[in-house]
Amino acid sequence: MQGNRIANAGLANRIMDADAAASLISNGMTIGMSGFTGSGYPKAVPVALAKRIEAAHAAGERFRCRVWTGASTGPELDGALARADGIEFRLPYNSDPIARDKINRGEMEYFDMHLSQVAPMAWQGFLGPLDVAVVEVAGIRADGSLIPSSSVGNNKTWLDRAQGVILEVNRWQNQALEGMHDIYYGTALPPHRVPIPLVRPDDRIGDTHFRCDPDKIIAIVETDAPDRNLPFAAPDAAANAIAGHLIEFFRHEVAKGRLPASLLPLQSGVGNIANAVLSGLVTGPFENMTSYTEVIQDGMLDLLDSGKLRMASATAFSLSPEAATRLNADMSRYRDKMILRPQEISNHPELIRRLGCLAMNGLIEADIYGNVNSTHVMGSRIQNGIGGSGDFARNAYVSIFVTPSTAKGGKISAIVPQASHVDHISQDVQVLVTEQGLADLRGLSPKQRAALIIEKCAHPDYRPALADYYRRAREGSYGQQSPSLPGEALSWHQRFIETGSMLHHC
Amino acid sequence: MQGNRIANAGLANRIMDADAAASLISNGMTIGMSGFTGSGYPKAVPVALAKRIEAAHAAGERFRCRVWTGASTGPELDGALARADGIEFRLPYNSDPIARDKINRGEMEYFDMHLSQVAPMAWQGFLGPLDVAVVEVAGIRADGSLIPSSSVGNNKTWLDRAQGVILEVNRWQNQALEGMHDIYYGTALPPHRVPIPLVRPDDRIGDTHFRCDPDKIIAIVETDAPDRNLPFAAPDAAANAIAGHLIEFFRHEVAKGRLPASLLPLQSGVGNIANAVLSGLVTGPFENMTSYTEVIQDGMLDLLDSGKLRMASATAFSLSPEAATRLNADMSRYRDKMILRPQEISNHPELIRRLGCLAMNGLIEADIYGNVNSTHVMGSRIQNGIGGSGDFARNAYVSIFVTPSTAKGGKISAIVPQASHVDHISQDVQVLVTEQGLADLRGLSPKQRAALIIEKCAHPDYRPALADYYRRAREGSYGQQSPSLPGEALSWHQRFIETGSMLHHC
Repeated sequence: MQGNRIANAGLANRIMDADAAASLISNGMTIGMSGFTGSGYPKAVPVALAKRIEAAHAAGERFRCRVWTGASTGPELDGALARADGIEFRLPYNSDPIARDKINRGEMEYFDMHLSQVAPMAWQGFLGPLDVAVVEVAGIRADGSLIPSSSVGNNKTWLDRAQGVILEVNRWQNQALEGMHDIYYGTALPPHRVPIPLVRPDDRIGDTHFRCDPDKIIAIVETDAPDRNLPFAAPDAAANAIAGHLIEFFRHEVAKGRLPASLLPLQSGVGNIANAVLSGLVTGPFENMTSYTEVIQDGMLDLLDSGKLRMASATAFSLSPEAATRLNADMSRYRDKMILRPQEISNHPELIRRLGCLAMNGLIEADIYGNVNSTHVMGSRIQNGIGGSGDFARNAYVSIFVTPSTAKGGKISAIVPQASHVDHISQDVQVLVTEQGLADLRGLSPKQRAALIIEKCAHPDYRPALADYYRRAREGSYGQQSPSLPGEALSWHQRFIETGSMLHHC
Repeated sequence: MQGNRIANAGLANRIMDADAAASLISNGMTIGMSGFTGSGYPKAVPVALAKRIEAAHAAGERFRCRVWTGASTGPELDGALARADGIEFRLPYNSDPIARDKINRGEMEYFDMHLSQVAPMAWQGFLGPLDVAVVEVAGIRADGSLIPSSSVGNNKTWLDRAQGVILEVNRWQNQALEGMHDIYYGTALPPHRVPIPLVRPDDRIGDTHFRCDPDKIIAIVETDAPDRNLPFAAPDAAANAIAGHLIEFFRHEVAKGRLPASLLPLQSGVGNIANAVLSGLVTGPFENMTSYTEVIQDGMLDLLDSGKLRMASATAFSLSPEAATRLNADMSRYRDKMILRPQEISNHPELIRRLGCLAMNGLIEADIYGNVNSTHVMGSRIQNGIGGSGDFARNAYVSIFVTPSTAKGGKISAIVPQASHVDHISQDVQVLVTEQGLADLRGLSPKQRAALIIEKCAHPDYRPALADYYRRAREGSYGQQSPSLPGEALSWHQRFIETGSMLHHC
């Protein structure tokens, strides 16, 4: 096996175990790790590093690092390092519950970034130097180039920027992944940037492998461990209702001549609702579709299998264990219908606008004007991060946000008088969908939007209170472009914090 | 004169006075007007239309239109039509005081848009059909093509999309404008979009004239009227201090090797502070600069004259009467250093990111995390609109926001606990500058940003209250990623509404 996966003979002396590799990392270092939505992250070195950090802390020594990744990773990375209190600063995205808890207790600094901007900003220099890259690959070729794993993320940039490179060669990853990736090496800093020559989701514009200076490789660790791959819950009634509204909207737009019959490249956030929409498209009327998105999840695989989706471009997989098994059993066939790219390309504003993506993203809350909070529960507690939603929402052909109208068993309304935090401004939120209905907000003024959102999207339990707030704001607001009552606008959040429910009890 | 300006003989029978032209517009129509920051807007037909509307209203008839423009216009357009109560719906930007007042009384619907998106969204179709274009030009050539005026804005799109075209040929506009413009005809709807072939601010990628189907021209009106051109106030001490901080920052970035010695293409919002920054650059150390921006204002002209600025690309002029006179006296020389483009190109995310613009924009308020409100006073009263600030801030190489630390004689703090409306999320606000100092927020978590903004940017009169709020939020917040107290976060705005000041009186 080793001969197959590490074909460059000159690197044999760099092979070591995870503890030895982790010993090359020291306190205060900045580490660029692979990993995006729980796939392709290193599984052994971060765990060994966490042990090392715990030992140092037990000995009264300081040991914390700055950790950069593609996006979310797995419990062996963020979970282990956060539990060891080993992360001082984290970017650009996190969904690990232990790390999230540290952040929300104020014990870890978290810089939540647009995912398209991580690589260019790392090059720009203000984030500081990158000491070590820890990158999972599917193999090392005879010429020293690297076979990417199940996510690409920022790996190209970490390999280029890091002073030292630690590779995890994971034999669990399918060797037939080779050839699926498209690593574009044409990016630069201004004034040397040029047009990115991609005009269709299926264009290949780069290499199938990572380049890596062999002299920078300080350790190679062999692993055989699966990606995080978590089960998806089956879509519930709300998710199916949202999917139904959305497919009806697409059908209407095609009928009006505002969308091609095969739609435009689909972008879909991760989660059960996104999965339900993709499943709904399996039986929908649209043929020959494409996808230009961040992650390939179960529903996308179903859509490919159905023949309705011609191909999918992304930067990572985010699959259930069953779907991962299905993919791995048939990788060489899927490979012709899939392209994994660096996240600066999968999420590049230039490309999203050019392709005209149909963006579908989830949210925590939207206000009556359609400003969307994707990140901060009650305005202060981070859930995951903005991820790629800003890259897609601002540049999409149609920017759609989807959510159940309530959360926490009805104690939280997803539609509020004023968003407690804003990630997507009203200009970037064109269609809002809940199980209650769909509000097509395009071309409407704020007041027109408010009337429609309250009518179409709010849950009946909250609709009267929203309508009452809006009516009083129309009477008493300082200005009437976006009527508001600052003394009351965030009172629903305050009530939830105090009573555990946004509902009035009167 | 007429022969010079209207060289196409076949169009002679379309020449009429403004009243006759205005009679071709009827109730309920959607009108696409030229005009961007008070230049190149039609001066006669809107006034005649306003008279027609007033007469209709006096006779008890309904007469209101939907008005689309490039950006702001002049009193002869927005002012006259708003006073006549003739505008039912307005996009994408307004700075006219009468129209603003109508909007804030809830008597006019206003759709505030990213300026780069107006043309593509007009093509996309959901805004509805465009009945009439009313476009000022500097002349009509023998072949029927049109010499653009002192702004380009969305004129290409209005001429292409409108069912009927009314031209105002303004002989006040300098004939030497001919050749300055670059009208790119390569845009399309997806899936037919291709890379825009512009890699430097001085690239010319289009035509120097507008194409226009002569059969669509329903009226030609001759005018001889100046653009709105308003005097600029001389920079005050605050503006000069802001300029000083910013130039020091640029100098520091060059020294660190993070910016080229000639900087990167400058984008600068309109106003006295922007003007002060540009004036400061006249005596600064940077040579061979370029500008890729929305408007060319007085300071830009000074910078061109100084030889420090090599060229400027924009979509319009926004000059004082003195600067307009200076420009017109020497147009053929300036023409080689200036390019005016459609606003979908001057503001295109693809190009802003590729060129790596240094974006400098004003604001109404920023909160302690650096979320910026550019549009809504006290969260509800529209000032002007988002304009191009979102196009530039999200895609800039460095996104800078500038503001005096207080307004209204100290009764309003520009730094508040929570922004009452958000136009630019913290990810898109990298550097914040007031006369108090400059906060370089790049790569910082929200809490790190808050500490720096309070220390560097807040006015001393408000700094203790901000620090106190932040300290209590760190103790009592629901989560600690972006600590906040929803029950109090907007209380400064409520206090201003109730007492006329954000200051505590205790």
